[in-house]
Amino acid sequence: MSGTTKLLNPFQIKHFNKSILKQLSTPDLLEKLNFVKKTQSGLFQYLPLSVRTINKLSNLIHTKLQNELGAVHLELGMLSPKKLWDKTDRWQKQGNELFKLKDGKGNDFCLIATCEEDITDLMGNYINSYKDMPFIVYQLNKKYRDEKRPRGGLLRGREFVMMDAYSFAATERDSMDMFTRTNKAYDSIFQTLKVPYVKAWADNGDMGGDLSREFHFVDKTGEDTLFECSDCHNTTTQEKTESLPQKEGQEFGNVDVKYGLSKDHNTLICYYFPEGRQLNWNLAVKAMDRDIDSNLKLLSNDKILDIFQKENEDIMFANIIRVMDCRINSRSNFPDFPFRNYLKNNFGQIDGVSIVDAVDREKCTECEGGVLNASKSIEVGHTFVLGTKYSKPMNLKFMDKDNKLDDNYVQMGCYGIGVTRIIGSLAEMLRDPRGLNWPVAIAPYLVSICGTEDNGVLTSQIKEKLNQSSILKDNIYQSFEHNMSLGARINVSHALGIPIAVIVGPKSWPNVEIEVRRKPTTVEKTQWKEIHKQKDQEYGWKVIEPSNPQHLEKHIVSQEHAQKVIELLLHDL
Amino acid sequence: MSGTTKLLNPFQIKHFNKSILKQLSTPDLLEKLNFVKKTQSGLFQYLPLSVRTINKLSNLIHTKLQNELGAVHLELGMLSPKKLWDKTDRWQKQGNELFKLKDGKGNDFCLIATCEEDITDLMGNYINSYKDMPFIVYQLNKKYRDEKRPRGGLLRGREFVMMDAYSFAATERDSMDMFTRTNKAYDSIFQTLKVPYVKAWADNGDMGGDLSREFHFVDKTGEDTLFECSDCHNTTTQEKTESLPQKEGQEFGNVDVKYGLSKDHNTLICYYFPEGRQLNWNLAVKAMDRDIDSNLKLLSNDKILDIFQKENEDIMFANIIRVMDCRINSRSNFPDFPFRNYLKNNFGQIDGVSIVDAVDREKCTECEGGVLNASKSIEVGHTFVLGTKYSKPMNLKFMDKDNKLDDNYVQMGCYGIGVTRIIGSLAEMLRDPRGLNWPVAIAPYLVSICGTEDNGVLTSQIKEKLNQSSILKDNIYQSFEHNMSLGARINVSHALGIPIAVIVGPKSWPNVEIEVRRKPTTVEKTQWKEIHKQKDQEYGWKVIEPSNPQHLEKHIVSQEHAQKVIELLLHDL
Repeated sequence: MSGTTKLLNPFQIKHFNKSILKQLSTPDLLEKLNFVKKTQSGLFQYLPLSVRTINKLSNLIHTKLQNELGAVHLELGMLSPKKLWDKTDRWQKQGNELFKLKDGKGNDFCLIATCEEDITDLMGNYINSYKDMPFIVYQLNKKYRDEKRPRGGLLRGREFVMMDAYSFAATERDSMDMFTRTNKAYDSIFQTLKVPYVKAWADNGDMGGDLSREFHFVDKTGEDTLFECSDCHNTTTQEKTESLPQKEGQEFGNVDVKYGLSKDHNTLICYYFPEGRQLNWNLAVKAMDRDIDSNLKLLSNDKILDIFQKENEDIMFANIIRVMDCRINSRSNFPDFPFRNYLKNNFGQIDGVSIVDAVDREKCTECEGGVLNASKSIEVGHTFVLGTKYSKPMNLKFMDKDNKLDDNYVQMGCYGIGVTRIIGSLAEMLRDPRGLNWPVAIAPYLVSICGTEDNGVLTSQIKEKLNQSSILKDNIYQSFEHNMSLGARINVSHALGIPIAVIVGPKSWPNVEIEVRRKPTTVEKTQWKEIHKQKDQEYGWKVIEPSNPQHLEKHIVSQEHAQKVIELLLHDL
Repeated sequence: MSGTTKLLNPFQIKHFNKSILKQLSTPDLLEKLNFVKKTQSGLFQYLPLSVRTINKLSNLIHTKLQNELGAVHLELGMLSPKKLWDKTDRWQKQGNELFKLKDGKGNDFCLIATCEEDITDLMGNYINSYKDMPFIVYQLNKKYRDEKRPRGGLLRGREFVMMDAYSFAATERDSMDMFTRTNKAYDSIFQTLKVPYVKAWADNGDMGGDLSREFHFVDKTGEDTLFECSDCHNTTTQEKTESLPQKEGQEFGNVDVKYGLSKDHNTLICYYFPEGRQLNWNLAVKAMDRDIDSNLKLLSNDKILDIFQKENEDIMFANIIRVMDCRINSRSNFPDFPFRNYLKNNFGQIDGVSIVDAVDREKCTECEGGVLNASKSIEVGHTFVLGTKYSKPMNLKFMDKDNKLDDNYVQMGCYGIGVTRIIGSLAEMLRDPRGLNWPVAIAPYLVSICGTEDNGVLTSQIKEKLNQSSILKDNIYQSFEHNMSLGARINVSHALGIPIAVIVGPKSWPNVEIEVRRKPTTVEKTQWKEIHKQKDQEYGWKVIEPSNPQHLEKHIVSQEHAQKVIELLLHDL
């Protein structure tokens, strides 16, 4: 090896068999194509192709947040001290999902999962008066969640890349304004991906606060369910969607039950609902909030029954609350109450609430006109109005116009985008029998040059040409494996999801063949069609439209105009 | 607030008092100027200014490693499994400095500190034959070391940003070639910073392997000591530098002693050397290697004495080895042997070795002609030839030309650059009474626009002009604080270390004043001086050379040519 030998890329695909692609799950496909290497459940090494894809998506997010929203980029440390999480009571609450560790001095930390505590603590150093706000800060880095059942490859890992932003304002109005503006910046990010997405009103859940919106990709493999009204088009997540009964008190059949338990084990809540329906935990919590202490904590059915068995002998609840879904008739077939010792006086009852998940084709509760259409989806972004949920326990106040602190707690918002989750979702949603199929905005490379080793002179020549383009520079993929056929090279390019393949051979030279891997997303391919009309003679540009949808669109063009044509094609993809 | 209000940057300097700068330590200065916020000993939040500086240095490293060296960029996970570290026996060895944690399933991990184990394990999946090599992979991300005494701010944190590269080769010759090429790429990186640096031959220490080179910034505040020969210019680290005695056996004075102990406590080593000199642990280990089992482990003096006290009653060593520094005369004044129970037969002795640190002005052992010049320095980069130190225990083999595995262990190298360490060092080395003073390559902004609020039209106009430059775009700093004087704005710009300040005011308009914060590093300011000669009339370009070294170089130029002049000036800085 001389000092000028090019070093190898050990992750280049060396052998390729197109036929196996279909059989692989998407996580396996990403591994087979050397995007990632899984080391343990939910943990991955990011190989060069996924690093490029992650970087492109990250850069897109940076640009939109900084230039369109005016957010400020900072990076928090990965080690978040327990003392901050204790203030918001989340060290215990989120406990099972946090990776926890101690340093040599015995201080407790967790690896960052979400950073409300850290950022609220930090910004306390820089907020004095109402004049210091409003602002939005954000970071984009790795986060950690010790999921019990990591799944779907990059969809739900234990280590993942996430953008998290936080807004700080003196008034609720400013805070709402920043929520709106951040949602708009998100729109701009998702629109650049040119992949359909849906916004849904969501429940704030554990995060707290008043208002929240989720950004979803609709896909049949998704774990989430969204409901969109056919009339008013109000879209909500399953947790948030109230199920409107056709008529109340009409269900005489079997009744199912799930239990809730207070922290001190003194209060038991029995949720009764028609057999065959699913209890909606979010609505169940809300039903309780109306009448009694919201400190009651819901536990899973299994856990309650487990506790029953352990404490069975002495159990005697101070309160037992029966929550009746509004569909149930009192003469329905109720399950037995599982305890022998109880006082009738300790029973209370809540009626007339809807506590089950909505289902497809039910009536919309928002407009009561349309019907709800259910669709499976993947959550990839979230925005929250938090109010003073974190500023209050962490005592983040500001001076008002009269130089008074009083109870001026900062109004906060938080916003997340799952970077690796988006990549995992798009791999899943857009793959086809040829392999992966990335949006132009995040494809690891924009164009590949496919030619055999024998045609090294020609491939070098076209590469040099394409490198002159500021768009294509550093975005050109070329395989250097000696023993690969031209067909295999083209197949690899398509499998990796590179939007454009340029095929070079001595027979057609000085013309090259351009295969468009990615399907155009815009309905009208206005730009290149217009220019093609004017330039077909000059560029030697022939278009071969696919005869059936399984074939790819092809363009034949003289090599000297290839750069211009590729740029035009990319613009419309 | 309307939807078009610009969001604030909460980290902009609001009040500025130039006179306090001098009193602050560099870590405090970086905090005062909102580059970082320390949260605990050795842990920092990176605020927007340091994020920009880190990103610029990172991008410089990415560009050089990818484009000049041909290294491949990947990113490993932060959680490194114990089972890999057990294979190389480093889980115990490095134990105290690793942040260790368990996941919910009880698996042990550490946060990555150095990734020889992870990368060797990973690359085993992609290396089959000698044809798959040579290559270099690298990552650039956060690393973790639970330092007992973190200090110097970014110089020695517990969480820090580091680039680590790893080379894989089939032959020692290829491995050496990659070591050479990586050193060359490092040169290119450090030369771009335009700050003097020194390369020194170093000892491989714990990392293992045969050959290693360190990259240092020379600075009086540094913790390390380098020795450079006045004649042959061979430069070595203190650990590596052998001290040449003027004459052997001539020291009759007091003798000092330090102890080493074997793992099983059966062997005691007593290192004797002249009082007033420092034992060189590295040379002391090497002295032992010559004669006895290299498994002997050196412990600190305190630790040995501690063990003595605990075990004092029954202590009886199987071997006691006395290592005599070559300067000592046998009639010197030796300290008492601290034990009562010993057998004379168990004593051994090693003579004629030099085991003390070299000192300034000693003779060079390399050429025996020149003298050694000592200088204090900060280590910022390191390159190692590792040989098979990691591939052997982790069984990373490759197939040779005869398709045989045999004992074909992969030849490895590893290479590190401390990114946040470089930033901390340069903050320390280059600061002056005005504040920080960044190299152009990593300054958070290249140019600041200084004008008061009253002159908003003029500052907007010049900003728009400068934004048209591809070099200056997104590199322009402007303070938006309403109540700051022009003088304070200029002082802030200089304190932040922005290389160029453009001062705008109605009196001099359409001319602007350009202050050059950064001192030119090139001896001859060729480029701009040449152009100035031709263009002084056309550009309205006057140069005011500083009358004394405490003043700054100033340029007066018409606003329409400011962009061109700034670009010329930056080129020579």
